[in-house]
Amino acid sequence: MGGRVLTEDDRRVLLRDAIDRGDATAIAEALRQIDEAGDDPVEYLDQLSPRDLQRFAHALGADEVGDLLGEFDPTDAADLLERLPLAHAADVLEAMEPDEAADVVGEIVPATASQIMVAMEPLEAEELRELLAYPPDTAGGRMTPAYVSVSPELRADQAVVALRRVAEEAETINYIYVQEEDERLLGVLSLRNLVLTRPDSRVRDLMIEDVYTILVTADQEEAAQLLNEHDLLALPVVDSEGRLLGIITADDVADILEQEATEDIERLGGSQPLEEPYLRATPFLLFRRRIPWLLALFVAEAYTGTVLRHFEHELSNAVALAFFIPLLIGTGGNVGSQTVTTLVRAMGLGQVRIRDLFRIVRKEVLTAIMLAAVLSVVTFGRAMTLHVGVDMGMVVGITVVLIVLWSALVAAVLPLTLRQLKIDPAVVSAPFITTLVDGTGLVIYFTVARMILHIPNS
Amino acid sequence: MGGRVLTEDDRRVLLRDAIDRGDATAIAEALRQIDEAGDDPVEYLDQLSPRDLQRFAHALGADEVGDLLGEFDPTDAADLLERLPLAHAADVLEAMEPDEAADVVGEIVPATASQIMVAMEPLEAEELRELLAYPPDTAGGRMTPAYVSVSPELRADQAVVALRRVAEEAETINYIYVQEEDERLLGVLSLRNLVLTRPDSRVRDLMIEDVYTILVTADQEEAAQLLNEHDLLALPVVDSEGRLLGIITADDVADILEQEATEDIERLGGSQPLEEPYLRATPFLLFRRRIPWLLALFVAEAYTGTVLRHFEHELSNAVALAFFIPLLIGTGGNVGSQTVTTLVRAMGLGQVRIRDLFRIVRKEVLTAIMLAAVLSVVTFGRAMTLHVGVDMGMVVGITVVLIVLWSALVAAVLPLTLRQLKIDPAVVSAPFITTLVDGTGLVIYFTVARMILHIPNS
Repeated sequence: MGGRVLTEDDRRVLLRDAIDRGDATAIAEALRQIDEAGDDPVEYLDQLSPRDLQRFAHALGADEVGDLLGEFDPTDAADLLERLPLAHAADVLEAMEPDEAADVVGEIVPATASQIMVAMEPLEAEELRELLAYPPDTAGGRMTPAYVSVSPELRADQAVVALRRVAEEAETINYIYVQEEDERLLGVLSLRNLVLTRPDSRVRDLMIEDVYTILVTADQEEAAQLLNEHDLLALPVVDSEGRLLGIITADDVADILEQEATEDIERLGGSQPLEEPYLRATPFLLFRRRIPWLLALFVAEAYTGTVLRHFEHELSNAVALAFFIPLLIGTGGNVGSQTVTTLVRAMGLGQVRIRDLFRIVRKEVLTAIMLAAVLSVVTFGRAMTLHVGVDMGMVVGITVVLIVLWSALVAAVLPLTLRQLKIDPAVVSAPFITTLVDGTGLVIYFTVARMILHIPNS
Repeated sequence: MGGRVLTEDDRRVLLRDAIDRGDATAIAEALRQIDEAGDDPVEYLDQLSPRDLQRFAHALGADEVGDLLGEFDPTDAADLLERLPLAHAADVLEAMEPDEAADVVGEIVPATASQIMVAMEPLEAEELRELLAYPPDTAGGRMTPAYVSVSPELRADQAVVALRRVAEEAETINYIYVQEEDERLLGVLSLRNLVLTRPDSRVRDLMIEDVYTILVTADQEEAAQLLNEHDLLALPVVDSEGRLLGIITADDVADILEQEATEDIERLGGSQPLEEPYLRATPFLLFRRRIPWLLALFVAEAYTGTVLRHFEHELSNAVALAFFIPLLIGTGGNVGSQTVTTLVRAMGLGQVRIRDLFRIVRKEVLTAIMLAAVLSVVTFGRAMTLHVGVDMGMVVGITVVLIVLWSALVAAVLPLTLRQLKIDPAVVSAPFITTLVDGTGLVIYFTVARMILHIPNS
């Protein structure tokens, strides 16, 4: 290969050739090249014939394929798995971490999923079925049962011996959990402490009893926050009786946080979250995610037509009033959008709460006063350059102050109020606040105009 | 306390009382109560007099205070540290993880920071100074030098003994790095492997040579992606010669991802990132972050005034045209905002790249055709309910199709194009795309109106 830069076609040839030869090392090398070029291996594998995909999986072995699928998005991994023979798919699932396997199985059509699980080792299939019973966005849906635990009565050296037997299967042995015979969680022990202590110390004396735990039904975001806040490598998941069911490991935190941030961002942009990588989303899926909000916003915005018809008389008398409609409501929308996104993010990070409402309103109103002062001058100036007269300039200069203040106030109050009503504050998107301010902004505008311009009654 | 619910005032009294008694256990319990109530301990500590804060720090001890500050936002931690006597502050910094200490010192005014560092142990101060030399958003700015490393010639049991000596100081001993005498990184060994192997195995034979590393000057986001993608607990940071300088641990990933997501969200909302917790931001800071974009958007939006004055003749002849201005440009802006936020997020997650541009445009145009079809019918219907005539209904029905397609196209092309020009795509905020579509949307609207309504020339 030398220093030659490989093209996408070269990499395809490389992979196909490695599959033809059934050479696991060459396949791994081809995958590495694909990864290094920043390409998505899924796209290469998608294009293989079922027969080639099967030979690929066979040559690489179930363990390697399982590792690979674990790095993919669960929907992608499910697509690939469904194209493998049942027995093959079952082996791959067995080789995967149970929590990742459950995520993938959750994306396979139920009939196929059952068939694959029948082909699995009964114990592993059982484990998977238990995990599938929890909604994917709860602590239970994220946990893996592959933790290690020991009895409190062991000595440190006995515990190390016990670990040796189970370490192969465990996802992490950095934390060793201490359980009673009734499965209740007693405490936790770090591998670090176990190794660095005297061999004859008792587990009971080494363990920390005050353990952070999370309820199996809790939201996955709560688990991520606990792991993150206390820099934990793993968090034990317990039922209401305090029995240990599984653990959530630190490598899940990033996935959870990314997923939640993506949902927030997409809601703030004014659509339902996609829940699927963008490039895999069909136009019809994008349509379905976007049209409900567009229609809702349309209905809300349609109100502006009513407002404007109501002021038809003023508009006919002073057509120049129309010149400033987009500018005034646009500026109001921009201020609202800035405020709302900052606040929704701060709420997502747990920085603000309902009891901070007064502080927030005060802060936002003070900010809006400064913004309004600057924008008022600029708007008056713009009116002058359009040669619409000083009266019109005063109308728009005053209107922009009122709209900016009104918009900031609404944007400051709405997210926290919605959360109080148990509505996700991220639905107060930039488009939502813009729409809300458009109609009310026009009422403000024409009321000010009527007062200052002294338009005669019709 | 029994089962009684504590109020905020109760918790303040509890804390103050514990400080008065100089009782570390009671202070810790008060902090736990504050934490459990979901309160921010920073707000409690901020309100203590300097003397009380000093007594608080003295009673709790430097180690505990260091742990506590490590959980705070660096700006908050810096504020508190500055209120402590120099010698006290130095002790606390020494007790903190070096990477966290560096983040905090970076937020202290330089003169005070130097004074505190002079009061520190020379070696620890030196370590801190080295870390401060790297920009905070690079791998170097995030790393900690508190890793453990061994020589490749040791046996496993000797390595465990060596670990015992340094484990106290290290941030993690889950990965043990293997270094040559010239400090080059040779490989890595997990604590797990070291413990579970035969005591007389050589480190050289146990270590994995193919280690993921990151260059000290690389972006912190790159480090987070590597750690996340490969589920690593720590990532070694090297210089261009391959010498090991420090490690970035998994607990930093969540912080990095949250910080980057926050910046993206705030940009998408149309303001400069705050870079500081919302409640600590002064109105003037919020003003400074928001006014540049508001003014830029104002100037761009001012163009709509020019467009409307240009079509003054059409507006005078058919005032009803004005009724639909907010509805049409609002809908265009909403479609653009949906598209742009979804795309910018997908780019942030590394899901789409410039070479996907054609696929993206195709996908967005197909989606927009479906959206336009539905919205066209609805818009025509709305025109009918406003009793403006079938001709006007056709004008707005056709206009909404064109505006939706145009808006989707612009929103699909712009983020990737900007990235090509090395501009952060997140500046294409919802307000930005709305503003862009407002002016061009009006041109489309009046052009369609002129053609269909046959308005006589003036």
